[in-house]
Amino acid sequence: MQTAPTARGQATRQRLMDAAATEFAQRGIAGARVDRIVATARSNKAQLYQYFGSKERLFDAVFDHHVAWLIDAVPLDATDLPAYAVALYDICLDRPALVRLAAWMRLERNPMGDLLPHSPDAGKIALIAAAQGAGDVDGTYDPADVLSMVTAIALSWSPASLQVAASASEPSAVHDRRRAGLALAVQNAFHARPQDD
Amino acid sequence: MQTAPTARGQATRQRLMDAAATEFAQRGIAGARVDRIVATARSNKAQLYQYFGSKERLFDAVFDHHVAWLIDAVPLDATDLPAYAVALYDICLDRPALVRLAAWMRLERNPMGDLLPHSPDAGKIALIAAAQGAGDVDGTYDPADVLSMVTAIALSWSPASLQVAASASEPSAVHDRRRAGLALAVQNAFHARPQDD
Repeated sequence: MQTAPTARGQATRQRLMDAAATEFAQRGIAGARVDRIVATARSNKAQLYQYFGSKERLFDAVFDHHVAWLIDAVPLDATDLPAYAVALYDICLDRPALVRLAAWMRLERNPMGDLLPHSPDAGKIALIAAAQGAGDVDGTYDPADVLSMVTAIALSWSPASLQVAASASEPSAVHDRRRAGLALAVQNAFHARPQDD
Repeated sequence: MQTAPTARGQATRQRLMDAAATEFAQRGIAGARVDRIVATARSNKAQLYQYFGSKERLFDAVFDHHVAWLIDAVPLDATDLPAYAVALYDICLDRPALVRLAAWMRLERNPMGDLLPHSPDAGKIALIAAAQGAGDVDGTYDPADVLSMVTAIALSWSPASLQVAASASEPSAVHDRRRAGLALAVQNAFHARPQDD
């Protein structure tokens, strides 16, 4: 018996990851069906379990991949939190599956505490603390709270919003209005003010 | 054959609603099991379908009940948005099931647009617009966006947070720190400033 060439195995693995991302984003972990994932990926259950072990570990692989992508795609410049918030608004519009994966993770896996067991946020919190030290961000706040609040307000219209979820089909003027409001709110809330006197 | 007395029927219906709220909050609509709901409620499937028609309509009844409760429990005073935000923070701690029900609704039912088909927010938006007219809230913003952003930032640490979900078991000093940061951020972001000159 021959094993599949590595390149071919890699391609199959990638198709399974892509199909799983779509299925998990739409239906969550419990609702996802392995049958649909392998059919979409032109693969089979034996391959899926060989590569990933279980549906749950496939979710982990998909989630880690997308989080790693997001961290690279939206770097934090703590001296310009409005720009960071607007970049998150735009990512939610472009990649709604990302936020839905995170929301399922919260509801189905980790109901309390940090969403991710090994938080990738420590670096961002350190950048915010440094910006507070330099007088760019209001030092009254706890730096972890700044990250939580900036992220939450940036996701006001995300696919996990409990109010209004934006969609790419809305007029561009609506998106521009929200971006401007978001940038102003983050600026006013978190960036240090000029001294009064 | 006799039909059950109304009071007894009402009591059964209430037990079904309570059991369903717990089940839906934990597992969502697709994940909820009617068998578990009727067992917890000391009822049976025939009664459940008689009262509610289907699992989906039972979810609607539970959801509407909790939303109505929430609107009464946390009224909006648009001249004091920090107090509104802190009240939402406290509700999330006290009633985590509420926010989880809303998050399942978003993921499983209404992926885009308003979370609720007949938005109960029109009254709140009108109050914010009036407060802008009176100079209490910064008139630069769209009033619907103010409601979206204040709600989102107030839910920064909610059971649907994509960062850190608070829990009642944390030290009270942590909750107080978050409440103070939240109130300050909402004040700075949305309330009109004294004139500079």
